[in-house]
Amino acid sequence: MSGRLVVAGLGPGAPGLVTPEVDAALAAATDLVGYGPYVVRVAPRPGLVVHASDNREEIARARHALDLARAGRSVVVVSSGDPGVFAMAAAVFEAMAELPDPGAVDVAVLPGVTAMLAAAARAGAPLGHDFCAVNLSDNLKPFAVVEARLRAAAAADFAMALYNPRSKARPGQFARVLDILRETCGTDRLVVFARAVSTPDEAIATVTLGEATAEMADMRTVVLVGSSTTRRVGRHVYTPRSASPGARG
Amino acid sequence: MSGRLVVAGLGPGAPGLVTPEVDAALAAATDLVGYGPYVVRVAPRPGLVVHASDNREEIARARHALDLARAGRSVVVVSSGDPGVFAMAAAVFEAMAELPDPGAVDVAVLPGVTAMLAAAARAGAPLGHDFCAVNLSDNLKPFAVVEARLRAAAAADFAMALYNPRSKARPGQFARVLDILRETCGTDRLVVFARAVSTPDEAIATVTLGEATAEMADMRTVVLVGSSTTRRVGRHVYTPRSASPGARG
Repeated sequence: MSGRLVVAGLGPGAPGLVTPEVDAALAAATDLVGYGPYVVRVAPRPGLVVHASDNREEIARARHALDLARAGRSVVVVSSGDPGVFAMAAAVFEAMAELPDPGAVDVAVLPGVTAMLAAAARAGAPLGHDFCAVNLSDNLKPFAVVEARLRAAAAADFAMALYNPRSKARPGQFARVLDILRETCGTDRLVVFARAVSTPDEAIATVTLGEATAEMADMRTVVLVGSSTTRRVGRHVYTPRSASPGARG
Repeated sequence: MSGRLVVAGLGPGAPGLVTPEVDAALAAATDLVGYGPYVVRVAPRPGLVVHASDNREEIARARHALDLARAGRSVVVVSSGDPGVFAMAAAVFEAMAELPDPGAVDVAVLPGVTAMLAAAARAGAPLGHDFCAVNLSDNLKPFAVVEARLRAAAAADFAMALYNPRSKARPGQFARVLDILRETCGTDRLVVFARAVSTPDEAIATVTLGEATAEMADMRTVVLVGSSTTRRVGRHVYTPRSASPGARG
């Protein structure tokens, strides 16, 4: 007997950014699995068993969700934003790959509005041309890989969305990231610090790299770094659709 | 007298992927502006004036929408996917920057589920680690910039989402892109061709770069190229959350 496992993205925070598809999956679930602050965003109801866990337990959470589905439950694993961007979907497939019968569980991923898109929309259109998304956490990769990717992105003149810029475990790392960005992109480059977008704690600040300090970001911030063509109009920041003259071959 | 301009993302196609925030903006609008095939995804109603235009007229469409808002109308410009990713938001800000009083119009951007996220969810989690998004159209940038960005992304071991892989105006270009990718990533690298995700025409195919041909993509396809660690489990494709051993410094 096997149930179903849905990995669903709740968007950045506001109920108005949760897709109807995700709402329908939540309404059909028997079990809800996720990091505590995301699970509480789903209204409790009779018949829905809630399994909240700590943030650092992604793979254990994924295994638990697969176990529940294999036992016949209808499980929804919730992520903030989009589950496929630095979130639970990859962890679920990693856990699935450990199983003797990985194809036995029916798994579906439901997309959501990821933090960088909500942040970019609030700021204007800073990701309006080619861009990349880099997770600054060095939990799962050495900082040398982070640095190599930032330098490659700067050299190719991508705009950048930087997820997980700061945590207590990495007190000095984001200051180093800003130094690398100033070195490769110059001090006039525009940067958007977008905190807790679409929640009551939302705060958006646009500064230059010369003005940026590590303290402008925290665990709830996504940082958008413009390309060489990113500019301001009124209160907005945007990257034009045309070629970036700063791109190097 | 000035109205309001909202740039809204309709998601990849299915009504279940349109956010409630966007539905509310559409319900409040007096004027709907967009490319024909996107405008028809909005249900007509009395009091909503529809302005459909051709795909190649982005900047003219943006100017028209701003003119309507400046005349006091409540305008929604619709894009497929997310309006900030290779879509109308940047064009609106480009047009706004031409105005003598760019701050006079109240503009808001409402995010949506962009094609690469919907495609990745259908395939599994191929964008589960650092990735980039590249528009392959050379309408607005020389192909040399496209090529430089593909090579930089491959060298830094990003997964890649390639938008607008083919059009009638560029018959041979995507074959050249596949050659560059084979040269830089090798022939075993996994590639997902995701066509018209969440519509009745949806088709998903996962192949290796060695198997990939230009004919596998068309104008409605987004192409996801894995990183060096991207692998299969069951019918899914995913990129683990951990460091990519193939990253070069």
